[in-house]
Amino acid sequence: MGFEKKEYEFLREIGLDSNNTGSFINGQWKSSGSVITSLNPSNNQAIAKVTEATIQDYEEGLHACSEAAKTWMTIPAPKRGEIVRQIGEALRSKLEHLGRLVSLEMGKILPEGIGEVQEIIDMCDYAVGLSRQLNGSIIPSERPNHMMFEVWNPLGIVGVITAFNFPCAVLGWNACIALVCGNCVVWKGAPTTPLITIAVTKLVAEVLEKNNLPGAIFTSFCGGAEIGQAISKDSRIPLVSFTGSSKVGLMVQKTVSERFGKCLLELSGNNAIIVMDDADIKLAVRSILFAAVGTAGQRCTSCRRLFLHESIYQSVLDQLVGLYKQVKIGDPLEKGTLVGPLHTRASRENFEKGVSIIKSQARKILIGGSVIESEGNFVQPTIVEISPDTPVVKEELFGPVLYVMKFQTLEQAIEMNNSAPQGLSSSIFTRRPEAIFKWIGPQGSDCGIVNVNIPTNGAEIGGAFGGEKATGGGREAGSDSWKQYMRRSTCTINYGSELPLAQGINFG
Amino acid sequence: MGFEKKEYEFLREIGLDSNNTGSFINGQWKSSGSVITSLNPSNNQAIAKVTEATIQDYEEGLHACSEAAKTWMTIPAPKRGEIVRQIGEALRSKLEHLGRLVSLEMGKILPEGIGEVQEIIDMCDYAVGLSRQLNGSIIPSERPNHMMFEVWNPLGIVGVITAFNFPCAVLGWNACIALVCGNCVVWKGAPTTPLITIAVTKLVAEVLEKNNLPGAIFTSFCGGAEIGQAISKDSRIPLVSFTGSSKVGLMVQKTVSERFGKCLLELSGNNAIIVMDDADIKLAVRSILFAAVGTAGQRCTSCRRLFLHESIYQSVLDQLVGLYKQVKIGDPLEKGTLVGPLHTRASRENFEKGVSIIKSQARKILIGGSVIESEGNFVQPTIVEISPDTPVVKEELFGPVLYVMKFQTLEQAIEMNNSAPQGLSSSIFTRRPEAIFKWIGPQGSDCGIVNVNIPTNGAEIGGAFGGEKATGGGREAGSDSWKQYMRRSTCTINYGSELPLAQGINFG
Amino acid sequence: MGFEKKEYEFLREIGLDSNNTGSFINGQWKSSGSVITSLNPSNNQAIAKVTEATIQDYEEGLHACSEAAKTWMTIPAPKRGEIVRQIGEALRSKLEHLGRLVSLEMGKILPEGIGEVQEIIDMCDYAVGLSRQLNGSIIPSERPNHMMFEVWNPLGIVGVITAFNFPCAVLGWNACIALVCGNCVVWKGAPTTPLITIAVTKLVAEVLEKNNLPGAIFTSFCGGAEIGQAISKDSRIPLVSFTGSSKVGLMVQKTVSERFGKCLLELSGNNAIIVMDDADIKLAVRSILFAAVGTAGQRCTSCRRLFLHESIYQSVLDQLVGLYKQVKIGDPLEKGTLVGPLHTRASRENFEKGVSIIKSQARKILIGGSVIESEGNFVQPTIVEISPDTPVVKEELFGPVLYVMKFQTLEQAIEMNNSAPQGLSSSIFTRRPEAIFKWIGPQGSDCGIVNVNIPTNGAEIGGAFGGEKATGGGREAGSDSWKQYMRRSTCTINYGSELPLAQGINFG
Amino acid sequence: MGFEKKEYEFLREIGLDSNNTGSFINGQWKSSGSVITSLNPSNNQAIAKVTEATIQDYEEGLHACSEAAKTWMTIPAPKRGEIVRQIGEALRSKLEHLGRLVSLEMGKILPEGIGEVQEIIDMCDYAVGLSRQLNGSIIPSERPNHMMFEVWNPLGIVGVITAFNFPCAVLGWNACIALVCGNCVVWKGAPTTPLITIAVTKLVAEVLEKNNLPGAIFTSFCGGAEIGQAISKDSRIPLVSFTGSSKVGLMVQKTVSERFGKCLLELSGNNAIIVMDDADIKLAVRSILFAAVGTAGQRCTSCRRLFLHESIYQSVLDQLVGLYKQVKIGDPLEKGTLVGPLHTRASRENFEKGVSIIKSQARKILIGGSVIESEGNFVQPTIVEISPDTPVVKEELFGPVLYVMKFQTLEQAIEMNNSAPQGLSSSIFTRRPEAIFKWIGPQGSDCGIVNVNIPTNGAEIGGAFGGEKATGGGREAGSDSWKQYMRRSTCTINYGSELPLAQGINFG
Repeated sequence: MGFEKKEYEFLREIGLDSNNTGSFINGQWKSSGSVITSLNPSNNQAIAKVTEATIQDYEEGLHACSEAAKTWMTIPAPKRGEIVRQIGEALRSKLEHLGRLVSLEMGKILPEGIGEVQEIIDMCDYAVGLSRQLNGSIIPSERPNHMMFEVWNPLGIVGVITAFNFPCAVLGWNACIALVCGNCVVWKGAPTTPLITIAVTKLVAEVLEKNNLPGAIFTSFCGGAEIGQAISKDSRIPLVSFTGSSKVGLMVQKTVSERFGKCLLELSGNNAIIVMDDADIKLAVRSILFAAVGTAGQRCTSCRRLFLHESIYQSVLDQLVGLYKQVKIGDPLEKGTLVGPLHTRASRENFEKGVSIIKSQARKILIGGSVIESEGNFVQPTIVEISPDTPVVKEELFGPVLYVMKFQTLEQAIEMNNSAPQGLSSSIFTRRPEAIFKWIGPQGSDCGIVNVNIPTNGAEIGGAFGGEKATGGGREAGSDSWKQYMRRSTCTINYGSELPLAQGINFG
Repeated sequence: MGFEKKEYEFLREIGLDSNNTGSFINGQWKSSGSVITSLNPSNNQAIAKVTEATIQDYEEGLHACSEAAKTWMTIPAPKRGEIVRQIGEALRSKLEHLGRLVSLEMGKILPEGIGEVQEIIDMCDYAVGLSRQLNGSIIPSERPNHMMFEVWNPLGIVGVITAFNFPCAVLGWNACIALVCGNCVVWKGAPTTPLITIAVTKLVAEVLEKNNLPGAIFTSFCGGAEIGQAISKDSRIPLVSFTGSSKVGLMVQKTVSERFGKCLLELSGNNAIIVMDDADIKLAVRSILFAAVGTAGQRCTSCRRLFLHESIYQSVLDQLVGLYKQVKIGDPLEKGTLVGPLHTRASRENFEKGVSIIKSQARKILIGGSVIESEGNFVQPTIVEISPDTPVVKEELFGPVLYVMKFQTLEQAIEMNNSAPQGLSSSIFTRRPEAIFKWIGPQGSDCGIVNVNIPTNGAEIGGAFGGEKATGGGREAGSDSWKQYMRRSTCTINYGSELPLAQGINFG
Repeated sequence: MGFEKKEYEFLREIGLDSNNTGSFINGQWKSSGSVITSLNPSNNQAIAKVTEATIQDYEEGLHACSEAAKTWMTIPAPKRGEIVRQIGEALRSKLEHLGRLVSLEMGKILPEGIGEVQEIIDMCDYAVGLSRQLNGSIIPSERPNHMMFEVWNPLGIVGVITAFNFPCAVLGWNACIALVCGNCVVWKGAPTTPLITIAVTKLVAEVLEKNNLPGAIFTSFCGGAEIGQAISKDSRIPLVSFTGSSKVGLMVQKTVSERFGKCLLELSGNNAIIVMDDADIKLAVRSILFAAVGTAGQRCTSCRRLFLHESIYQSVLDQLVGLYKQVKIGDPLEKGTLVGPLHTRASRENFEKGVSIIKSQARKILIGGSVIESEGNFVQPTIVEISPDTPVVKEELFGPVLYVMKFQTLEQAIEMNNSAPQGLSSSIFTRRPEAIFKWIGPQGSDCGIVNVNIPTNGAEIGGAFGGEKATGGGREAGSDSWKQYMRRSTCTINYGSELPLAQGINFG
Repeated sequence: MGFEKKEYEFLREIGLDSNNTGSFINGQWKSSGSVITSLNPSNNQAIAKVTEATIQDYEEGLHACSEAAKTWMTIPAPKRGEIVRQIGEALRSKLEHLGRLVSLEMGKILPEGIGEVQEIIDMCDYAVGLSRQLNGSIIPSERPNHMMFEVWNPLGIVGVITAFNFPCAVLGWNACIALVCGNCVVWKGAPTTPLITIAVTKLVAEVLEKNNLPGAIFTSFCGGAEIGQAISKDSRIPLVSFTGSSKVGLMVQKTVSERFGKCLLELSGNNAIIVMDDADIKLAVRSILFAAVGTAGQRCTSCRRLFLHESIYQSVLDQLVGLYKQVKIGDPLEKGTLVGPLHTRASRENFEKGVSIIKSQARKILIGGSVIESEGNFVQPTIVEISPDTPVVKEELFGPVLYVMKFQTLEQAIEMNNSAPQGLSSSIFTRRPEAIFKWIGPQGSDCGIVNVNIPTNGAEIGGAFGGEKATGGGREAGSDSWKQYMRRSTCTINYGSELPLAQGINFG
């Protein structure tokens, strides 16, 4: 069968068709659930159809995955790294097509779509090296003829539930690390980005097949909350990595905790930029624009709150409003577009509702504040002058709305930054070392990401990505994030024939 | 006022009296709650009285502690280390008296009482060095003129809720690390070991005072569940370290999660020893004895399950039963005693109830199985032959009961070990490298502590202490446990004048 | 011009011809020195001709390299990693051809030739990940408003002088790490393996060119001692990595030290295998064979000394002699060959001289002991019964000669192992944990490589490769070897306005 | 026998007398060499007499030390840490007396004398924690049923040769680490500070004795070059830590290298401070004063070169000259003194000679330039205007002479800083992040210590102390300096029954 539009024909290059099976189970593509349609957010027209997974599909998948886990965990880590290297090569060979699909199905602009796929590739490259560095420790024992080890072993299976806004990069953060650590991966992509889920899974599946490995090492489902809940409840899955709202994340954590599983949570952000009086204003304004309107404000790291020093308040706002007026909104695949549509009609409605509440609480809407009438889900990037103690400012509205507030001192600005329940990302623009070091120190930003002279968004994979407080506390990608995907054993080995006790205790 | 018994007079040396104020609030000893009596588990007679804290006391304490946190976190870590060093010296100077108190109030034998205090001292010594090693990272950035940092900052306040069985060592594991990391500590000791709580707090308080530091840096409460709940709910306390049962721990976690706080949980263990056919039987038997009857089976790491290879099954059992017959049970302060009383009358009753259920499920009680009639809480160390699929074997009975089971192969033994919901400690006795390395590898024990040729109990502070699954996943003492007491920020600093984006994205 | 033999035509695929320019200088192939002929060790016939570098070529190369260093060190490390990734891909695409060349020019058997090239590829993959992990530290300062950093910066230029026996892997160990660390590389390959030097350089050069980077980042010379000395003396080269004999290494070190440069030395080994009475004899015998005759005994990690427990002495020797009789010696490119020729006619003569000395000192030559008359450089793998205090046993004879000695206790065996001046590699075969842990502990082997139940040779790249004592103390490949390729700065930054002093000193 | 002056009576408190035995050999004080007199640098009068060691004494000491090494290395590291803790306590109890002795015998002012002793105490405290963190690694192997370890073992004996300017702190840097690492220490103090050597050794000896450990674990000699050479040549000493001039250090390295031993060198510095146009001038001037005249310019980190931005050149110089005029020179034990005498009459003569050469090369001597006529070794703190290409500026003159130069750009200043052959310490004063990060980055200072807004001197123990280039490359105190005091083994353990080879090689 053919695609409805000729411009979708490129999808064949990455294994998609007008009708697609949405689950990769035990190395087979099969799915017996309802058929859904993936829509183009720019016009809400169909791209292709996908058959979702049922709970029976899930069970079959998990059964096979549990079996595959026994094999995968005994393969030496550097050999697992070689598989992940090949996955990276497979993705690299389809970078353009996959990036285009991300842009088409999610709605972000093409450079961001390609950037997102590049991020998984980067993660693969990184994980290859890591596969020889999942180091345990040999710790001096206080007892003669004893050695103490700290050993890291695979968990078995890692569940990954991702959100629409990064429909594949977040999978990459988790799966690349989880796989080299010796875990099988069970992935549930967002219900509204099934084509990306399928396309990425196909490339992984091919690599596994080429290496004569069980396909069930990577088990993947298109589906909704039912599959998500199954993962949360499943005691065969020691770790569930969940990306989404604080509200849903809290529910996931509760379910997983009850069975004494672990969660890795990447939840809501409510990210602020502080601009000091001495800042490089040009750099700051460009950064705010990228952070606030980029991805139509649908990054977890999008800037939602802007704190301006009173001395540069008006000047920055004037420049921002000027830029907002020129921002090109439109088809994300079109060259020059900076702002694409919101992801779904529901997001657009949510924006509308949000703005009407804002209007009741804000001082003034400086620009924007409306949806854009069209077939798609376009809305106007919006700047709002508001008081810091207003209730809406504490909440994450997932769209291009920027709250602007004024401050006098650095201490005030930090307090305002830290007053949100969320703790993902934050930035300061300043050229004073004392401000920089205060900002990153004990009395500075309480977020997981604390930037200086760059926007709140656009993290590199070498660092640990994640946030504190209502953002959930998980860390993904670089640094020692890999430890979350393994279990730690403290091992004391007595190779002598005596039994000395710790703390010099004498027993009997 | 005097103590009722002359033998309690040594308590004056560590600041105790027959009536004691149970809360250290804002640098003052004050308490307005009910008066409880601390009992000697050997005879259930009063040692001394303690006035517990009310919620009003708690509030006053936390208010002061929050203020003190602002000061403490800005003192350089090595200077905080110097304070912890002085605390260690203060404890060292009272080692014998404190150890005697632990033995008297908790009921463990004197060498174990002194060993427990030694463990806090060891933690202090360790934390001093650590105070110059709470290292962040400088990570290479992919962008020119950018540096990426991983910075560790204090959390502010750490709540520590400890249990009766290690009435002060667990405080030491947490507080020594928490303090050098820059956090104030709020401690609630067990309701039945208030004298230890007070005695340790007094020594800490003196050091703070001598250094002109706010006493509220270390805030301490004698009290019950009400204070525990207050800590769990208190959003001023970003981390709650809880030691206790899996059941209560789950409730604590739920409460703390709802306010997006973090938990460090040390919950139930159900620890097994495996004895292989090639084991050094003498070493194994001595270890089993220490692990199963030591501390009257009231360590979280006490051995509760014993898996014996069929070829040495009878021989090991015979030796064990022989040793059990000779074990001296009695006053823990008396020289030669190996098994003291259970901690409370309620523990004794719980043992009685437990044994009656066991009788209905077990094959045979080989020895023990009764309480010992006396004023105290003494019970008989008990060995039970039982089948591995019996329900009681999955549960932690907090007393000297050992379930014995037979196996044929290492794989079977590991499966039996891993079949418990808890995952704290585990040991194997063998002299075969392939068995040792399998045991500590991906297909081996799933516990947090995985020993070879030593018992399940008796951990050293240099390693990370804690367990997986229903044991809660926390890690205390050595290795990188300190990271749990700090918040991590990934900081990217742009010191150039350009704005390159990660993943090579080009925006606008 | 054509190759003399048709079977050399494959060399065209990797950029070689019958006449080759031997230096890559400032991104150009040029060379004005004498013309040498690369010989096939199997028949001493010409493979191809190479024009070597003069000192003038060297100067031109180093001048350009110094300039390129200024550029390369400012490129972000992960971007440098991307270049190394591409180098890995280039090598991977030519794996078979390069492996065949290594086998042809050096003389090792084809699986080893391919294995050697695979090792550089592995190093590239590893270095890519490492390029995001060249982490410095942020260390707590004892002074308020101060931060202490440990920063790692590039050295500038790293000189790499490699030996004939690993004509490209050793370059890989050094260059992959040196490059991601931000250094330019100056390579002098062995004078007798110029074709490999050229072929590898060509692949690197192509990658640099494709990325519009200065070719001088990788500067490569075919040449002899004159070029080596120039590198040693050149104060523009802060680090010289040298692989070769202890004698020459000591001279290099002296020269480099005098200009306060640093050396990374991989010198002679004199590696021993210990076989305990409880060893898996089959495993041991197979390992000894591989270690003693593999690469015709021309690995730095080749086993030269064999210590057999008296109880298994005769049995192991009998099995070994039996295997030696069957070992297929011949053309290393031919399937089934286990032992190829020595690398040069001079090596063969050296073997002959060595054996004649051995004869005067040994008890008995059990097998071998002669050169094999042919056009090539073949010699007989040789086993010698000898006393441990014989002078020849302390020296490295670079060929397939194995000295066998008897021992009674583990302590004796360790003492014999440690009695050599060299300290590269060592292995024990045993199944007793107490022997294993003693062997790797403070009273065990004093070598840099300490194996258990595997041969002395065949290291993985994830660990640090290198040896102690007369082996020179350098470490290459994995672990923290990368630190040797960078300079470390301890930085204390005062961002406050006060000047507190360390150790609480009060000045003025 | 009594001291000649009553004010020396305090020396009895730290075990000294008017005649002292200068070697601690095999746990005994004995010495058969010549008798020397320790002089007070303030008046060149005798403090006390010391009998130095002969080569025979040395041999006896080393023999015992070698034996003791076998014991000490098998004591668990945390137990060794406990010994070092007790050494720290012993020093702490004598802090004031020891500090006074340092001031008296070396000539530094009392706060610096006490600060120096505090530094050893800090090192002891630090080393205690470290004794549980001398961690090896468990590295993933690419082969099934293999584990790869990186193990750190003691070297055996560490020789420590210290200089007069830090007569005990440098011993502390080395010995505290060396001891917890499991090494015995052989110490040769400076010939002109024998009383400090003896006093410190006595405290260490007492701790060893109290713990029933062989005194030979710490072997100590008063003596001159003969003993130093014996240490350098002694192949029983795998590591020689030497502090002194680049010239002597190079000789030591040559001697030690010839026997394939290792050196840890802390040699000459020629340290510069850069003051940018935007600097906090007050902070800068105070820092320059401390760095240039503190310890009478006799720290290896003393500031000898000052680069001033042209815009603040005159102003800074005027302030400096003003301060130099007020600096109180005199008895270092007297309150208020900032500058004491040079250490010996020879140092004073050396200063005189140096100044006369300077006069021939400099533009102008702004202040100072003469010795001060007195019984003691006092000289005038001196400021010299000079051109950066003057020969004397490349050399270390060990006294309070400061060369001042002018610059226009940061790049110029860095180039001037890096133009010295030495590479120990360096500082910049600036408030611009771009300057700070450039300074600590690849194109910044090439020194081992790279400070911002603090002087060149006054390092904390938590970082690694040491320098590049002619400073010798060693690192002492914190970070991973401990690795230099241990030997590293890469261990691969095969616990299976197969023999897979690395790089997938198939042999036979």
